[in-house]
Amino acid sequence: MEHWLTKRASLSPNAIAVETIDNGTWTFADLYDASIVFAKKLYTTSKTNKHIGILSTNSIEMIVAFFACTYLHKPVVFLNARLTQEELAIQCASADIDSVLYSDTCEALTLTLPVPCYAFSTIKQLKETNIRLDETIALDDICSMMFTSGTTGKAKAVMHTYDNHWASAIASALNLGISSTDKWLVCLPIFHIGGLSTVIKSMIYGMPILLVEKFDETIVHQAIMERNVSIVSVVAVTCSRLLNKITNETYPSTFRCMLLGGGPAPKALLDKAANYHVPIIQTYGMTETSSQIVTLNHADAIRKLGSAGKALFSAEVRVNAQRPKEVGEILVKGPMVSKGYYKQPEATERAQMDGWFRTGDLGYIDEEGFLYVVDRRSDLIISGGENIYPAEIENILLAIPGVEEAGVVGVDDAQWGKVPVAFIVTSTHVKEEELLQFCHQRLAKFKIPKHIFFTDTLPRNATNKLQRHKLMERLP
Amino acid sequence: MEHWLTKRASLSPNAIAVETIDNGTWTFADLYDASIVFAKKLYTTSKTNKHIGILSTNSIEMIVAFFACTYLHKPVVFLNARLTQEELAIQCASADIDSVLYSDTCEALTLTLPVPCYAFSTIKQLKETNIRLDETIALDDICSMMFTSGTTGKAKAVMHTYDNHWASAIASALNLGISSTDKWLVCLPIFHIGGLSTVIKSMIYGMPILLVEKFDETIVHQAIMERNVSIVSVVAVTCSRLLNKITNETYPSTFRCMLLGGGPAPKALLDKAANYHVPIIQTYGMTETSSQIVTLNHADAIRKLGSAGKALFSAEVRVNAQRPKEVGEILVKGPMVSKGYYKQPEATERAQMDGWFRTGDLGYIDEEGFLYVVDRRSDLIISGGENIYPAEIENILLAIPGVEEAGVVGVDDAQWGKVPVAFIVTSTHVKEEELLQFCHQRLAKFKIPKHIFFTDTLPRNATNKLQRHKLMERLP
Repeated sequence: MEHWLTKRASLSPNAIAVETIDNGTWTFADLYDASIVFAKKLYTTSKTNKHIGILSTNSIEMIVAFFACTYLHKPVVFLNARLTQEELAIQCASADIDSVLYSDTCEALTLTLPVPCYAFSTIKQLKETNIRLDETIALDDICSMMFTSGTTGKAKAVMHTYDNHWASAIASALNLGISSTDKWLVCLPIFHIGGLSTVIKSMIYGMPILLVEKFDETIVHQAIMERNVSIVSVVAVTCSRLLNKITNETYPSTFRCMLLGGGPAPKALLDKAANYHVPIIQTYGMTETSSQIVTLNHADAIRKLGSAGKALFSAEVRVNAQRPKEVGEILVKGPMVSKGYYKQPEATERAQMDGWFRTGDLGYIDEEGFLYVVDRRSDLIISGGENIYPAEIENILLAIPGVEEAGVVGVDDAQWGKVPVAFIVTSTHVKEEELLQFCHQRLAKFKIPKHIFFTDTLPRNATNKLQRHKLMERLP
Repeated sequence: MEHWLTKRASLSPNAIAVETIDNGTWTFADLYDASIVFAKKLYTTSKTNKHIGILSTNSIEMIVAFFACTYLHKPVVFLNARLTQEELAIQCASADIDSVLYSDTCEALTLTLPVPCYAFSTIKQLKETNIRLDETIALDDICSMMFTSGTTGKAKAVMHTYDNHWASAIASALNLGISSTDKWLVCLPIFHIGGLSTVIKSMIYGMPILLVEKFDETIVHQAIMERNVSIVSVVAVTCSRLLNKITNETYPSTFRCMLLGGGPAPKALLDKAANYHVPIIQTYGMTETSSQIVTLNHADAIRKLGSAGKALFSAEVRVNAQRPKEVGEILVKGPMVSKGYYKQPEATERAQMDGWFRTGDLGYIDEEGFLYVVDRRSDLIISGGENIYPAEIENILLAIPGVEEAGVVGVDDAQWGKVPVAFIVTSTHVKEEELLQFCHQRLAKFKIPKHIFFTDTLPRNATNKLQRHKLMERLP
């Protein structure tokens, strides 16, 4: 298949591909030209068969760098700009990254990385090599990877093929439609699937995106009110902040969808959105499903409050249970579901069941076929749209001399939805201050426990596995 | 993958799937229920592994019968209701049809067919069998077949897989968009790809179609003016008749696209449409490409008058020539292109070139990448949207005692675009009246030569192949 950007630049060269908040605009022809030039410059720095890491907050340069890598047929590993250098170093090694491209905003994070790192601006100053790029894509090839982790806490790189991204974009289009007047505001990080999937939709649909470096409710609210935005993707916490910006006005009629994902939506939030006539479409999905896979349409939003909806066209969802409405593990299937985790055959195998992907989430399906997610993975802490895996924090705490046992759970937080807190068992006296300092050096800020409770023992089951739900009962 | 109708009936059970001109409406749930019941009744009559023929003018029963066959995993061979019994009998044999389902309007055509034929109404009276239907589809399976023929005149059944239909529907959506207010008027026969592809789009998009039994300009015009139709597919002759119905009024603003295919569009017609502000989108495609594959958007309609446009997203077009703008055979590629002709490996092989499908049409591509079709297959006669293959008529004429040679070409006709005329060389005296009577028994009415010219010799090349373009020069 022809590369999607090549094809789009041929079909709609003068259509706007990307707008930025400072009124920069790039047409598809601009984006194509810049990506081809960047690829020809990048070629000299990345000649191995390994992967290229991209470490950046949202920017046009990040998008150009990504497309350039695709023209070189090098899978891109998107690195989370909120991680520590230590976390990033581990990801570089486990995802076979040979070099990292970064934005100026992320320079400090690259100082001790164990691979060559190049600022986007550095690549731009190189000479173009005289190579002929192969402007086709093979749908089965890996396009990109992103790290996620199961409850074991070990980070796993989810592989996304071109076909995964294609199927996701098409399934979304069959749900939301495609209008020639659409403009999708991207305020989710592109290094998360919610952001990246919209960049890919832009190419496939020929749709402009309005790119915001990071979520800021004042900027996003103003953009919705004044810049003909038709769709925006949000998580519960950013949705809530946006609704708080609404006073007497209503959104323009061109605004047709606030796509709400990244975790369960509180009823109060949905009620508030309904009061303001904000058309919420709730979605359920994860990195492994290349973004949304189950969606509750606006028409059913009130009638089926609390439901995640039905599987998109070409996708399927079922619950591993004996009887209707019984709670069980949620299983999904479809061409947008990742083939697995990079170089982790065991984790990949564990996530499969008879051709279905095991989400690890619990839920049930009602008599009309609507999915209800009961628990967004039993132990996962979602804080401001970021997934926090308790075991990862526990592993850090357990590395501290004197810490014998550690258990992390999430507690409700008015601002972030959930924040992590830790229970530890120590053998010697350890100061809370020292524990936190240790964490600060190794964990992104949002993963640092907000409280540490010292205790004598942690609840465990017969096979000695930590019972986190029992820890929850101990919270003050 | 879940069967598309099963999936659509689950996602949008109460949305309108089909409206008829007499105000009948069927929701997707209705269509699904009716198709499942019909399948369970049909099961007893069709237990071989062969195929089911459907012989019908456009009707809801025809659509239900088609879907019922897909639930039984039996490929449907769509038979052209304008053919003779003799032509149909040949198609039944060559496409391995074990039974034919027909509408009352086509009953007369079934009287001498060599396979069991059942009226839709007959199947409806049967008892439902107690079987559990497999409501999934395999994308690589053959969904349907339709006959076409090359210039050799031998009818060939084009195989359409589910994936061909899916890719066609998606490529069209990425071009035209999908709006929740769309309603597509279907006045092309469903036994042609232009009609069938819209029935399939309806399921995949969740879009209502307004079904018309056959084209009638008064009915279609009125439907466009009064029934919120947004898209209609036409061929040049029906487009022209529709434009003639416009007096002082303009089409409602909900009408967004007149999709014009089935042959080249005369400039005068496009000019007239522009005058009436009718948004024409020209398309190029054929049965083998599962409907449109190259499209000229409205925005380029005037600037690129006469062009067929560019290949749809996921499709590619090129011309087999040495230099840019040089005329050569048009080659196309993409997931909507048929894998070939049923049980005709040689014809299938002949139509391939390095993974591209040879359309047999001649054209060139301009410096901006727009395709211009110079000749819609060198010898093909398109008459009122129907393909007429000269060799087929020639073969009939050559079967008449006393006819030694025959050559058929198309001549311009104000009403039909083109009509066939024949040149013959006879060895004994043969009356024109007898010739025509012979044709009437064996050919659809639209294929019968409008004139027969008696001559002494036909122009042939060195290898004795008939040179039809030289015949054209002999026309009075």
